[in-house]
Amino acid sequence: MAVQAITWAPSGAVRIIDQTALPETHTTRDLDSAAAVADAIRTLQVRGAPLIGIAAAMGLVVGLRDQRGAPRAGFVQRLSEVAAQLAATRPTAANLGWALERMKAAATATPGDGGALWERLHAEATAIWEEDRAMCRRIGEHGLALVPEGAQVLTHCNAGALATGGIGTALAPLYVAHEQGRALHVYVDETRPLLQGARLTAWELAHAGISCTVLADGAAASLFRAARIDLVIVGADRIARNGDFANKIGTYGLAVLARHHGVPFYCAAPSSTLDPTLADGDAIPIEERDASELRAWYGKTVIPAGAGTMNPAFDVTPARYVTAFILERGVVQPPFGA
Amino acid sequence: MAVQAITWAPSGAVRIIDQTALPETHTTRDLDSAAAVADAIRTLQVRGAPLIGIAAAMGLVVGLRDQRGAPRAGFVQRLSEVAAQLAATRPTAANLGWALERMKAAATATPGDGGALWERLHAEATAIWEEDRAMCRRIGEHGLALVPEGAQVLTHCNAGALATGGIGTALAPLYVAHEQGRALHVYVDETRPLLQGARLTAWELAHAGISCTVLADGAAASLFRAARIDLVIVGADRIARNGDFANKIGTYGLAVLARHHGVPFYCAAPSSTLDPTLADGDAIPIEERDASELRAWYGKTVIPAGAGTMNPAFDVTPARYVTAFILERGVVQPPFGA
Repeated sequence: MAVQAITWAPSGAVRIIDQTALPETHTTRDLDSAAAVADAIRTLQVRGAPLIGIAAAMGLVVGLRDQRGAPRAGFVQRLSEVAAQLAATRPTAANLGWALERMKAAATATPGDGGALWERLHAEATAIWEEDRAMCRRIGEHGLALVPEGAQVLTHCNAGALATGGIGTALAPLYVAHEQGRALHVYVDETRPLLQGARLTAWELAHAGISCTVLADGAAASLFRAARIDLVIVGADRIARNGDFANKIGTYGLAVLARHHGVPFYCAAPSSTLDPTLADGDAIPIEERDASELRAWYGKTVIPAGAGTMNPAFDVTPARYVTAFILERGVVQPPFGA
Repeated sequence: MAVQAITWAPSGAVRIIDQTALPETHTTRDLDSAAAVADAIRTLQVRGAPLIGIAAAMGLVVGLRDQRGAPRAGFVQRLSEVAAQLAATRPTAANLGWALERMKAAATATPGDGGALWERLHAEATAIWEEDRAMCRRIGEHGLALVPEGAQVLTHCNAGALATGGIGTALAPLYVAHEQGRALHVYVDETRPLLQGARLTAWELAHAGISCTVLADGAAASLFRAARIDLVIVGADRIARNGDFANKIGTYGLAVLARHHGVPFYCAAPSSTLDPTLADGDAIPIEERDASELRAWYGKTVIPAGAGTMNPAFDVTPARYVTAFILERGVVQPPFGA
């Protein structure tokens, strides 16, 4: 069974898995203040765009527990302050702002004093989480038909349970196939530079009892040549109207290899990843991350000072390489309208 | 100017660069016994197939200095023992055995006592080194025409000065182009798992004043898509008669990307890399290295115990992906006869 990345603790705190401690230790933390939730997001104990949004919404609930006896005006004022504190943790994550705005709108649309508003926030945060869980499940069910008995699947980075409130996006069809007793084996690119494949995807698959093998990113090509990959499934960070999509650096190379070797290549994502404001992938901004991610490993320098580096976090895969998109509404083809 | 990976020290010792200390420190070591040379090979202070052969030949000379006054029979007996000690360091490296056999044959073909035989061994080791230097230079000169002014070149792993007695194989045309004042920029795959690109290739290029950029292996594909690669040059560990060749894991993926994007892909190697006993690449044995290279980083575990790993050291690139081979005898096409 897939791991649950976030839940309510019996105490009312936000219970998370500390992803920075993986894979060495499986540590759960009960975060009982908004400051603790903000810190967990900032330090990547909680990561993955959908999961960050859920964590922020739940953090707002926890951070306002002591305001349940407050009059309406005082509660709304404090809500605004706590939401701003949570929003500041990772200002570029779209789901974070989206979830916090939705929470604020729910509260202000509710009549009554602090107690009533807090109850509504609790229900709204739980709804955000439950909707995400349901969306992951639907992606998994739609993708199931694409994962035949005995499938050997290649994935990249982490678009799994640890990135969402449910069973993930790219990994969702694999969890559903495993639940139904289908044999499968997952090859996991370690995914340099931050090793989300090795550290997170392999951990959650092993935790769920799904057979998996981690490889250096450069070793994937030889698996295609040996006909050991039946399909590729990856997630997406942003999808343009025409179907071009951005995902973790290395995804485009896998798309070329899949095309060259005649292997299906799928992109699984929630509809919230579609960006109807972008005509195509050329407009997707690519984040260049700090060189330190390449230059040093746990304090050991591995690149000489005289050499330059490039460290793009994402690449863009043109839509023509994608066999199909797996969204919560079905297995579909672009274009994606507004 | 390219770094010199090995030389005779004024004391008569074998002077090497300790490659395990790169890129943090540029440490030279004077090895004044065969045991010290054997230890340096075993611990990868000296690596790269041509360089290992040279180091072993020079180690034999250093190890027999105290036998110069010995009678012939005693010298030959000791020669055999020291050669066996050196050969045992990396039993699978072809150049190691080849160099030691050549040294033994030279000694036994020489008349006289220990003094005469030792003089011959010294000359033979120097000849092995000088022949390798000359071979690298010729590869560089033949490859020069393939490196246009302003070229943006992608390479993988380390097939440079640090792997040979001279200016390398894949990097040789780049050193010659740089000497002649041609502008060029080299993109260097970091080359997981052992990071020879980041640690060694970037270091020796920066040392020579050649502009270079290190990237995660998965980032190379986006450079092809952005039309920022004009040619790819890699080395080879073994080349079959039909031109299929084995090289560091990740090479085949670059060959597919080069083909897909219409970029020339060259393999540079000495003729000693040709293996006329093999009809094609299917017969090349692929070494599977220890999982610890992937599982841990300077003591930090990055893959959970429940996940499997695969860690092939090499992959095979079919000859049809190779635009041309750059050998010391010219820019050529297979097949390669006996």
